[in-house]
Amino acid sequence: MIARVLVPAAVREGEVLDVPADEAGHLVRVLRLRPGAAVRVFDGKGHEWDATLGATTKHGAVVALGAARSAAPEPRIGYTLAVAVLKGDGTDDVVRDAVMMGVQAIRPFVSARTEVRAAALERAHRRERWERVAIASAKQCGRAMLPVIHDLVDLRTVLATDGEALRLLLVEPAVAVTAARPADIAAPRAVSLAIGPEGGWTAEEAAQAIGAGWQPLRVGERVLRAEAAPLVALAACQAVWSET
Amino acid sequence: MIARVLVPAAVREGEVLDVPADEAGHLVRVLRLRPGAAVRVFDGKGHEWDATLGATTKHGAVVALGAARSAAPEPRIGYTLAVAVLKGDGTDDVVRDAVMMGVQAIRPFVSARTEVRAAALERAHRRERWERVAIASAKQCGRAMLPVIHDLVDLRTVLATDGEALRLLLVEPAVAVTAARPADIAAPRAVSLAIGPEGGWTAEEAAQAIGAGWQPLRVGERVLRAEAAPLVALAACQAVWSET
Repeated sequence: MIARVLVPAAVREGEVLDVPADEAGHLVRVLRLRPGAAVRVFDGKGHEWDATLGATTKHGAVVALGAARSAAPEPRIGYTLAVAVLKGDGTDDVVRDAVMMGVQAIRPFVSARTEVRAAALERAHRRERWERVAIASAKQCGRAMLPVIHDLVDLRTVLATDGEALRLLLVEPAVAVTAARPADIAAPRAVSLAIGPEGGWTAEEAAQAIGAGWQPLRVGERVLRAEAAPLVALAACQAVWSET
Repeated sequence: MIARVLVPAAVREGEVLDVPADEAGHLVRVLRLRPGAAVRVFDGKGHEWDATLGATTKHGAVVALGAARSAAPEPRIGYTLAVAVLKGDGTDDVVRDAVMMGVQAIRPFVSARTEVRAAALERAHRRERWERVAIASAKQCGRAMLPVIHDLVDLRTVLATDGEALRLLLVEPAVAVTAARPADIAAPRAVSLAIGPEGGWTAEEAAQAIGAGWQPLRVGERVLRAEAAPLVALAACQAVWSET
């Protein structure tokens, strides 16, 4: 498999560009590529090129951009995933898989049953880590677009956002609210999908969300692992709405 | 959350039963439940009861079955997941998530690009481990039915099975075969879904499978992690075929 390299400054065929330090280190020290190696460069904004590795040093590398090429197609529907942060590395898994499913934005939030504190996440530089996870996942899955990872907010703030999108609230099978399945909903232009932490929403949170215009969504009849729920819900919506 | 206990010998309300040793140990030493605690008993064949923990010892416990109750509904469509074993603990994750998605059977296999050897898996008693993973996942997701975990076989054997079901072969976006999406396929009564290892099928394997009557299936346009592909494909099929 040809290595894919993120170079946000890339613009057009013929350019010779410095590879950002993190990426250069990966190419040179981990993959042990030598000058002349074929690579692919993407800019994180949806563009990709065939490219050739030029001079390398211990900490740096340059690439020469060749012809533009098509990256994996982006979904026609713009998905924002609003997801409660999970304990341990759970949110890393969610970010990795959401990127693979083609989301445009990830909005991490804290809700009543969230088991980690916002301050602890900030001290641990989690946002930067999620951005690294997103880059690694984009390379793996073939996307040339990196989703936006928004600042950590509380649920109240999430509920007030994305008014122009179809706003869906994933609910567990046992929750006593009427919920649509993806097949009950016409394909929207943009979706914001909110998914709670392990243990789900409190009754008060679900009521607030519904009051704010979020529509309950149900996917299947079994309890989903918190780490897997975004993947299952995104796969279900995309398959029903027949996206690329 | 009330603990769920697997007791395969359970048959009807009013019985007082010994809990199998593994399960008893979990109740007594991990969850530290005391006699009189409310639990739920399921038999692994789709039945579930309210129950009360009776006498416990360090290594044993009895339960008294109360009224039968409904477990999470089983999918109307019977899914068999034929999945290439993955390196590390990858197959554990696949088994866990396939149980959560409601599959009836899991058939692990070895194909050309499989990076683990069948002999190593047998020495490590992987099959027994996958059965424990399946039980833990059933408890978590609310199922009262345990899927069958078949013996490890080679791909040739997989391709010759499940002739009465719709047989689908998951292919990567880059594979040059014409592949249907779930939305292109009418809801079948039973499905056998074959998913390859990291790196996918060889061209020869794909041709053999198609020759044997397996229909190529595509889910999305990005490369899926091998551990996540079964979850995405099952979620997509179930959502399109509008199952519970």
